[in-house]
Order: sequence, then structure tokens, then C-alpha cells
Amino acid sequence: MKISIIGATGYSGLELIRLLESHSKVEIFSLHSYSNYSENVAYLYPHLKGICELPLEPIDVSRICQHSQVVFFAAPSGIAKDQVAPFLEAGLTVIDLSGDLRLKNPDDYPTWYHFPAAEKGLLDQAIYGLSEWADVKKQKLISNPGCYATATLLALAPLIIEDLIELDSIVVDAKSGLSGAGKSMQTTSMYTEVNDNLTIYKMNQHQHIPEIIQQLKKWQSGVENIQFSTSLIPITRGISTTIYAKLKSRLTTEELNAFYTSHYNDKPFVRIQAPNKLPTIKQVVGSNFCDIGMTVNPTTNQVIIVSTIDNLVKGAAGQAVQNLNQSFGFAPNDGLKFSPIFP
Amino acid sequence: MKISIIGATGYSGLELIRLLESHSKVEIFSLHSYSNYSENVAYLYPHLKGICELPLEPIDVSRICQHSQVVFFAAPSGIAKDQVAPFLEAGLTVIDLSGDLRLKNPDDYPTWYHFPAAEKGLLDQAIYGLSEWADVKKQKLISNPGCYATATLLALAPLIIEDLIELDSIVVDAKSGLSGAGKSMQTTSMYTEVNDNLTIYKMNQHQHIPEIIQQLKKWQSGVENIQFSTSLIPITRGISTTIYAKLKSRLTTEELNAFYTSHYNDKPFVRIQAPNKLPTIKQVVGSNFCDIGMTVNPTTNQVIIVSTIDNLVKGAAGQAVQNLNQSFGFAPNDGLKFSPIFP
Amino acid sequence: MKISIIGATGYSGLELIRLLESHSKVEIFSLHSYSNYSENVAYLYPHLKGICELPLEPIDVSRICQHSQVVFFAAPSGIAKDQVAPFLEAGLTVIDLSGDLRLKNPDDYPTWYHFPAAEKGLLDQAIYGLSEWADVKKQKLISNPGCYATATLLALAPLIIEDLIELDSIVVDAKSGLSGAGKSMQTTSMYTEVNDNLTIYKMNQHQHIPEIIQQLKKWQSGVENIQFSTSLIPITRGISTTIYAKLKSRLTTEELNAFYTSHYNDKPFVRIQAPNKLPTIKQVVGSNFCDIGMTVNPTTNQVIIVSTIDNLVKGAAGQAVQNLNQSFGFAPNDGLKFSPIFP
Amino acid sequence: MKISIIGATGYSGLELIRLLESHSKVEIFSLHSYSNYSENVAYLYPHLKGICELPLEPIDVSRICQHSQVVFFAAPSGIAKDQVAPFLEAGLTVIDLSGDLRLKNPDDYPTWYHFPAAEKGLLDQAIYGLSEWADVKKQKLISNPGCYATATLLALAPLIIEDLIELDSIVVDAKSGLSGAGKSMQTTSMYTEVNDNLTIYKMNQHQHIPEIIQQLKKWQSGVENIQFSTSLIPITRGISTTIYAKLKSRLTTEELNAFYTSHYNDKPFVRIQAPNKLPTIKQVVGSNFCDIGMTVNPTTNQVIIVSTIDNLVKGAAGQAVQNLNQSFGFAPNDGLKFSPIFP
Repeated sequence: MKISIIGATGYSGLELIRLLESHSKVEIFSLHSYSNYSENVAYLYPHLKGICELPLEPIDVSRICQHSQVVFFAAPSGIAKDQVAPFLEAGLTVIDLSGDLRLKNPDDYPTWYHFPAAEKGLLDQAIYGLSEWADVKKQKLISNPGCYATATLLALAPLIIEDLIELDSIVVDAKSGLSGAGKSMQTTSMYTEVNDNLTIYKMNQHQHIPEIIQQLKKWQSGVENIQFSTSLIPITRGISTTIYAKLKSRLTTEELNAFYTSHYNDKPFVRIQAPNKLPTIKQVVGSNFCDIGMTVNPTTNQVIIVSTIDNLVKGAAGQAVQNLNQSFGFAPNDGLKFSPIFP
Repeated sequence: MKISIIGATGYSGLELIRLLESHSKVEIFSLHSYSNYSENVAYLYPHLKGICELPLEPIDVSRICQHSQVVFFAAPSGIAKDQVAPFLEAGLTVIDLSGDLRLKNPDDYPTWYHFPAAEKGLLDQAIYGLSEWADVKKQKLISNPGCYATATLLALAPLIIEDLIELDSIVVDAKSGLSGAGKSMQTTSMYTEVNDNLTIYKMNQHQHIPEIIQQLKKWQSGVENIQFSTSLIPITRGISTTIYAKLKSRLTTEELNAFYTSHYNDKPFVRIQAPNKLPTIKQVVGSNFCDIGMTVNPTTNQVIIVSTIDNLVKGAAGQAVQNLNQSFGFAPNDGLKFSPIFP
Repeated sequence: MKISIIGATGYSGLELIRLLESHSKVEIFSLHSYSNYSENVAYLYPHLKGICELPLEPIDVSRICQHSQVVFFAAPSGIAKDQVAPFLEAGLTVIDLSGDLRLKNPDDYPTWYHFPAAEKGLLDQAIYGLSEWADVKKQKLISNPGCYATATLLALAPLIIEDLIELDSIVVDAKSGLSGAGKSMQTTSMYTEVNDNLTIYKMNQHQHIPEIIQQLKKWQSGVENIQFSTSLIPITRGISTTIYAKLKSRLTTEELNAFYTSHYNDKPFVRIQAPNKLPTIKQVVGSNFCDIGMTVNPTTNQVIIVSTIDNLVKGAAGQAVQNLNQSFGFAPNDGLKFSPIFP
Repeated sequence: MKISIIGATGYSGLELIRLLESHSKVEIFSLHSYSNYSENVAYLYPHLKGICELPLEPIDVSRICQHSQVVFFAAPSGIAKDQVAPFLEAGLTVIDLSGDLRLKNPDDYPTWYHFPAAEKGLLDQAIYGLSEWADVKKQKLISNPGCYATATLLALAPLIIEDLIELDSIVVDAKSGLSGAGKSMQTTSMYTEVNDNLTIYKMNQHQHIPEIIQQLKKWQSGVENIQFSTSLIPITRGISTTIYAKLKSRLTTEELNAFYTSHYNDKPFVRIQAPNKLPTIKQVVGSNFCDIGMTVNPTTNQVIIVSTIDNLVKGAAGQAVQNLNQSFGFAPNDGLKFSPIFP
């Protein structure tokens, strides 16, 4: 099966190349970019030499439709919404890694993304592909979740579904590496500003907040809002979220752990840690794992959940491949058999 | 006035040397270590060449008492408690940077420090030197606050004193660089384990928790517990705390900011940021400043306070010098006129 | 085919696990450590959860010999030399990643390694497995080159073999990340000492110098000595060597590049860059590639060669797998199909 | 005495503010920028709050000339050359931190800087202010050396002046942190590209090469060229140069060290290390020191010299303040009494 990648030179696009080159059922047919063209992607990204040496081309819809069965959109938010239609019409499967199709309510786009929503039909058709909790089998338009949303939702799911916590007590303190900010050049992405620093940004205004709430509401309609903050820390890859919430009733860490284990024991990419063992970022980097650990603080009756992912894998390209596999019925770990890199 | 430093080769001790070499009223008489002796501290710490070239000596109580008026204890916790008495008896002022004398309740030591408390008389005599909120004038035994405690307490003080928040809703998510862990060698302090990583440690068990609660109770007796977590991030110096709490009643960010400004406007080392502006770590590194920013989230009625300090300056040696200045009536910023280093 | 890893919890041992788990012909039978025992290696190294969950056991020679065909020694130098004999006698293949068997002259060991040489018979039998330049087919005792030696020798080979440079003019300025120093705890490996720093160490005394000279002499007997220096830079993985030498006669960068291309065009793990394009470290990290770039400075008639490797892959575990593949006639890239991780 | 800073928001400009705020004879009158205007520099650079809160203004030549006696140009290269004249005519002292006035030969500018030279009269008038080797007393136009040039020249001076080495054998391998690249946004300055990486750039084409050769020729006319390469390493501040050269005749490290000590023993900002002790970058960061260490390799008869500086202090703003002090006869260390920050 052949696939095409649009936005191939962004960090998520490059990561798709890394993963799909190891996929047994898929061949990359073409790579497309909006700004960087080259006879050979490895001229611009020398790490790909000998791995993938396809050209970087402008988008040619009809040629893509003729040869590929799947298109991955790995462009920044605001692009896919206006470009996916012809691929869908031609019968291709589209997996969009941007935020364009994640929110069901069109009014949320101006507020959170500062651009108008995609047309209603697309928003309705798109399936939110949080792999462990979605059924994307045979779906043609899959909206891949945001990186923060993935780490947060996988960590909150059992708490919410089992109705264990006070819904107005959720505090999420998320920390991310710089690759999550993509390749756009900004002062805040410069080495000199990031190294030896921690910067809190988009406090209460991060565009992943509405998709988190939208999904939480599906699990428990009573969820109204969450407190959600995001910090940049000086690492390249990885997200760690620490989630605090008040327990509705007393529970030990071991009891809580049992809920998580039962929800995730048939989901190999979520690794529940032993009670009181909190995952580090390094233990998932390079892989598609989401590691989740937890502890209960009996003095405050709070639960603390920590989840870690590689934002470019489980938070982007890896989950996109999971969705591909699920959609087409491939083995769940095809293209995803990567051990974390340690150290 | 002559001073001696005990534990001079730890990171706080070395920082005391840096600061005190710029102090107009103080001369370092002697440097003492428990393990590293040398004719010249600059042989072991070449950054000090031409700055301070005193020998590193074992402790000689009578010689110190004969020449120095002040002794700084910058040793790891568990040492000062058994060694400060003779200096006090000889009439010297002792400023202890360890945790040995911070807690008033002796029973807390076995629980939080895993060693027995100092004798009761010392605990009673010791003044907790949170500089902006303590009166250490002419005090002879000053217990310097912990780094996390300093960042947390300075950020919480106006909220607590003004009774603005639900006392059982406080969540503190603190992040620290590695110099806070001191110079003891552990796997978790190795570069390969820290770089590109974030590690949560001592969740709900950090020894600074009881001193925070002890001080909060002084301001509001109703405080029982706080949720407090600590992460190591890959930076050398600096702490950032993010504090979440439920407001008792509606308040705008600007109104909240006004409380902070009024509490701190005569305290030059606390710099209140403009409303909604959250400080970074880099903007304080190398200096004695504690920067505090804040925002109110009207959708959750939560307040978010962020404070940043250099853990070795405001969180250790710098606050110790502040206490020295206050104790002896020196200019508040003597030895502390360092601009943050940026970038 | 079953294999055992001795020294499995060092960084090279852990990397062997990562690579061999993706090898189609090999199964890891057992993991052995000298200090860390556990029912499950993933308890101590949580990144391995779901990847490899074998126990960490003491060495049991007879059990290993009964089940495994190959033993990898990934222990620090000074151990393998006294332990490989029984495995060889039992007919197993031994691949040693330490320095114990690299040098042919026993007298070099006290000088460079500060311990006595292995017995002469072992030194004689051992093949120096610089994969691109060695023939280890069916060999039973393979000594895997050092990380610095690999990067340096692959970069120097064409210059020396083609007799292009003044042999007494070679200067190698090598920079390495911290994982090369292994997991032993030393002050110089602490985050606080490494971050924001560069430290030059073992100037003219690095134990990889004699193996470099030994191999260069095989190519050109006139080589006497090289100038070789090593710096630690604040990265986890990777080595970059910059090599300077005076050309014997005028040569353009393009002509020089052609020599390299012809020597390496059938060796897929060495990627020769376009003329004047110098490789970065990041473009090889996580992979078994050695990237080599070059430029000629006509004003000084010097050639500058730059080579980069991941010290734990091409400089250790990856080259060991290459040697395994070559020894047993497996596909050259089995277990080594990893794209570099970028960014 | 009042001074003005032009280019105040670049990293060197901000560093000038830090240093000059501690100067006993100087007051900053005004700050000027080409792109960032603000009522208060601390609004844009919050680390300066309470330290310096002057406005950021466009350049107003007549107002500056009316109030200030000295103008520091801390703008990127290519600007000062067209703007210094009116200040000189008005009798002010100009200290230029850019490359515009360092080279005496106008033809070198198109080659190395890719723009035309300043007018000949300015090039002739400008004194190259390598503080330890220049006499800038009462000079009105001082050209501050480049950061790499400073580290290289201070390290080479005794070798060249004492005629100890083969002049065609010099190899300089210099490594720098990112602040040396300034604040212009480029892909190569992004955190994701720099972290965990080492990048060699401008090989044989760095614009500091001609000023190094120009100064070396003053000491020994026989110097023709040097081999000079520059790497970016993932640190914020600091340069380390490793210099290799063939000795003309045998010399021990101790003998060599004695030459250095005698040349620099009255120059407090150059700290010669003990024989065979090579300085790290961290031991100078934040200070105006240049630390120099050395060793002789008897097997190759090479000398290896290592020098380290903070590129923003000794390599820019600090040396500019040294030149100010020398020019006006102030105490040599006024504004420069900063201990290195360790760790």
C-alpha cells in the first residue's frame, strides 16, 4: 500500500518517515512540502541518507490520488481543513495530524485557533483518533489528537470513566520539550532562550484544552473545565503531565492502580507503572509508549497521576501510524516496534 | 567583620564565597570542609583563582571563635545540629543553611529528615529567616529556609494572609535544577540520566513540606496540608513553582496583583510581574531576586501563581547574606548587587 | 540462535538489548550483571517494559554454554580478559566490547589501561573487528573497537591507505557525549559539572590511542604517533572527530572526496557527505552510521576530515552486531535498521 | 561620566548593561536599538527589572553627544562603520564591539564580511583593543576584538613572541556556545537543532581569521596562515580553543608554562593554569577571565594550549569595559569584579 506525506519536512512529517520506513505493509510514495523542495529529502535532512531519498515536491493532488491510498497531513494547523476534501472524494484515507478537525463545535476554532473552522461536514465526518479509546476501523477521515491531549486523556480516562474524582478539582501541569513547538522560528525557540530555562506559555489558552474537555465530556458529561498549564523545558522530545484531583472517596494507591491496569491491560502502548512509581520522560523517548504512574496522597485525599510520552511519536506520528494500522486492520505494532532510546 | 564558612565546598558554600567577596563590610576569615582539604580552595575550584585563595581546613572551633563573628553552616542536613552550640556559647552569630533548625516540632525530624532532632533549646532559639517576612535583627541563631520553601512561601504569603483561597485546594508543582541536589553523587544526578529528562522525586515526601506548612500556619492557623510535588529538570540552577488554588470569591488578575504589589513594594528582592506575565527561571539566575507572576482563570475560579528563584542565591547563600545584613544592620543589598545573568 | 549478554546493565549492554530485540535471527537467552540482580531487567530499566523482561542474573558459565551460541561481553575493561576462556573452550563465539583484547602488544596494557594484559594466546587469537576493514567471518573471538578509535580510523583510512598525508602531521580533536564514560559515578559525570561546560580529559593519555596507532601501522608502517585529544561536551550520545593533516601534494576537495567514495561505496554504514559538507552529530544518533565529510584548505594545504557516530551504536553495540552478522553470515543490516532520531 | 549603548538589546549590549551597572565611575545615560523600542528596557528584558529601567530609544546623535562621553556600539557587523563618524567629530570616545574596524586592509572586508570596508581614515584611526597587548590609553576609537580572536590570540601570544613553534603548523580547534551567534533567528540557532548536537560551521571562512593573522603578523611577520575551525556546542556562553603546534625545539611543559607566567603575571584577567592542567569553560563563565592551560606531547613534539573565556564578557562586553578603563585611566577591574558562576 502506498502513502503520501504532506508537510514532510516538519518534525512530525520527518518522524512519519522514520516510522513508516519500518512498516511492513506500507511504502512511502511521495513527500510534499509547502516551502522546501529538493530532488532528495536527504539533501536537506542528511540523517535520512540511505533511509529515504525521495524528492520533496509541491502537492499534486491527482498524482497522489492515482498512486496512494492514504495521505498523512503533517502540516501546521490551518492548512489541512482547506485541502483534505479532494483526497476524500477520490476515496483516499486521510489522517490529519493538525488541530483542524479535532473539535466538533465550529465556534471553538476562532476562540482557540484564531482561524475559522473547517466546513461542518468535515468536522462531522472526522473521527477523533485517540487510539486506545477510539474505533477508527475503516474510517476515511481520522483526526489525530494533540500531543498534550494524548498524554492528558490517557492519564485521566480511568479516573473519569470510573467517576473517582471531583470533576471541578482537576489540575494538569504539563511540561514539554521544544520539538512540540515545531520548526517555526521564534525567539522563544532559540537555544539561548531555552537552555537553562523554564517558560510557562499559553496559560489557560492552549488550543489542546477544548479537545481534552470535549473528550472528557464524552466520558462524563459533568466535566465543565480543567485547569491546564504548559511549560517548555530544555529537552528536545517528550511530554510529562502531572495531574492532580480530589478523590470522591478514600482509595489506596494499589486500588487505584488496579483500575488503571484493568483499563489498559489489553492496550500494549500504555504501560501502567507499579504503584507509587512515576515515569520519567526518558523511558519513552523514541517509542510509541505512554507510561502512566500514580500515587494517592492520604493527607490531602488527592490523587496524582503522571503520564509521559514522546510528543513526536505517541503524541503525533506514532499515534497516526496506530490509527493507520487500526483503520486497515494491520498488526497494531507494525511500524511501531521501537524500543525507547536510553540513555 | 570576619566570617567563617563551614561546608565551603558544597554548592551553597561556594556561592557564599562568590557573594561575600563582593560584600563591603565582611571579610572571609576561613573556609572549612569535612572531606576536602587544600592549601588553596582555588586548587580544587579553579574558578576562584584570583578571587579567593584561602586554604580549606578542618574545623578548629577555638580559632574560628577567636577571629570570626559569624559562622555560616553550609553543610548537608544532619551536621549543624550537633556542632553549632560552642559557637553560640562563644557569642558568635550562626546562620545555618541546612534543614536542622527549621522545624519547631522535634517529632518532625525523624519523619521528614530520617534523623533525630537537634536539642529542643536550639530549635526554640532558632529564628526561621524567611527574609521578607522575618525579623532577624540582632538574632544569634538564624535558620535559613529551604530553596523550595522560599519560592513557595513568598508566592503564597499574600494569598494566605489576605485569606483569598480555599485552604484545602493548594497544589504546588515545583521544578528544580540539579544544583539543588547538592554534590553528593547519585545515579540520579549523572548527566546521562538528567539530560533530556524530567524526573519526579519525593512526591509528597519532600523535607521542605513541613517547614512550608509550619510557616503557613503562622499566617493562617487553618492550613492543614498542601499538595506539593518536585521535579528535576535539566538545568543547573533555578526553581520555578506553579501554585494553583481555588479563590474564595471572584477576583480579577489586576485586583490580585494589587495585593501582591502592596505586600512586596518595599521588599526589593521580590519583583512582582505585571498581571498575566509569568516569570521565567533565566530572568533570576545569578541574582537574589524572587520573581512572582500571576493570573486568574475565571472559568475554574482558580488562581495561578508562579515564582522563580536561583536556588543557590535566594534559595540558599543569597538569603543567608540577606539575613546577615538584617541581623547586623548592614545595607540590605550589600553582597547582593548581582544582576541576573542573561542569556 | 541464542545469545547472552554479560554486563547487560551498562549503557552498551542496554543498547545491545535494544538492537538485538529487532534482530531476525537472534534471541536473547540471558542477561548477566556483576552488581545488579533482578527478576526482571525492566524493574530497573523501565524503558524496557514490554520489550525485554528477562531476569538479571549472576554469570553461570555452564548454563550459558549449554544454551547460547554467542556471548557479548559489555563489561568495563579489565573483566573480560579473565573470563572469556571457558566460553571459547566450549565453542561459543565471544564478542568483547571492552579494551581487553584490542592491543596485540601485552606491554601496552600496563601503560594505557593500568592493568596487566590478557594472556598472550587470547591477544593473538582476537580479531580487531573494525567492521568495514576487518574480516571476522567465522571468527570465534572478536574484539570490538573503541568508540573514538572507530570514528577516527574510519575517517583516516583512505588518507593513510592512499598515502595522501604527512604522517607526522595528524591532529585528531575528538568530542564526545557523556554516555561514552559509562555508568560509573564520578564528579566529572555529574549533571552540574557537565551542563554548560566543555572539559578536556586524558590529553595524550586516552586508552584508544594505541589501538588507533596499531591499526594505522597496518595500513602504513611509517605511522609513529598521532596527536589525539578528547573533550566531553554536554550531550548524551555521539562523537565528532575533527582530523587535520598536511597533504603530501595538492588535491581538491572533490578529488579527495572521490577517494573516500570509492573506498566506502559498498559499505552502507559509512555515509560519505558531499564535498565541503561536514556532518553533525545529530544526523547519526540512534543509528549505526558513521558519517564522514571533508574539505581541503588550500591556504594551508591541510585536509580536514570530520566523522560522527553514535558512540553506543557504531562505537559499541551496533558494531558488535555488525561483527555478529559478518561472523555468522547474516544480512549486514539485521538488527541495525534504525534511522537516526531527528531532532 | 555618562555613556550610551547602541545596540543595547543584543546579547553584548545587555551584557554591557550588567557590567556597567556595577562600574563606580560610569553611569548609563541612554540605550538605543534599531528595532526594539520601549519605555523601559525591563519590559522586554525582565531580568533587568530593578537593575536598569531606562527606555529603549532610536538613536539621537545630538542628544547623545550632548550628554555622553562614551558610546559603545554593540550592533551587528556592518552598522557601526557608517555611524561612528559624528560621535568622533563631537569628541566622544567610541568603543565598537563589531568587526567593522578590526581589519587594517580594506580589501579584507568584501572577502570575510561580505560588505565594503569602512572608510580608510576610520580603519587607520581605530586601535585594535586586545586589552592585554594593546595600549588604548586616551584613544578615541577602539575596535574591540572578536570573541574567537581574543581566546586564540591570548593563547598564542607567548608562543609566537618567543618564537617557539613552527609557524605553518598552527591548528586552532575552537568550540563556542550559542550566544556568540547573537540574537538573529536562524534554523541553526533553534533549540531543537542545537541540543544534543555539535555543528561545525564556517570552516576556514570565519571572519575572525583575518584579525587573528593580522595580530600574529605584528608579533612575527612570518606568520602566513593558520588552520582555524569553529564548532557550535550546546552551551549558552563560553568558548574553548584547543591550539596545536609543532615546537621548534624540545621544551618541557614546565618550561613552557614559565614563559606564559612571565608574560601574563601582571595581567590579572589572564589566569595561567598549573602545568598540564587544562581549563574548563565553566570556570570562567560570567567573568572577564581568560584561563590558559598547556601541555607538551613529547611523542609528537607538539604543544597543546587550551584557553577558555566567556564570549560575552572577555570576548565582548568585558573587554570593552577593560578598554574603557584603560582609555580613561580607571582601575583595571572597575565594572569587572565578577567571580565566575559555578556551577
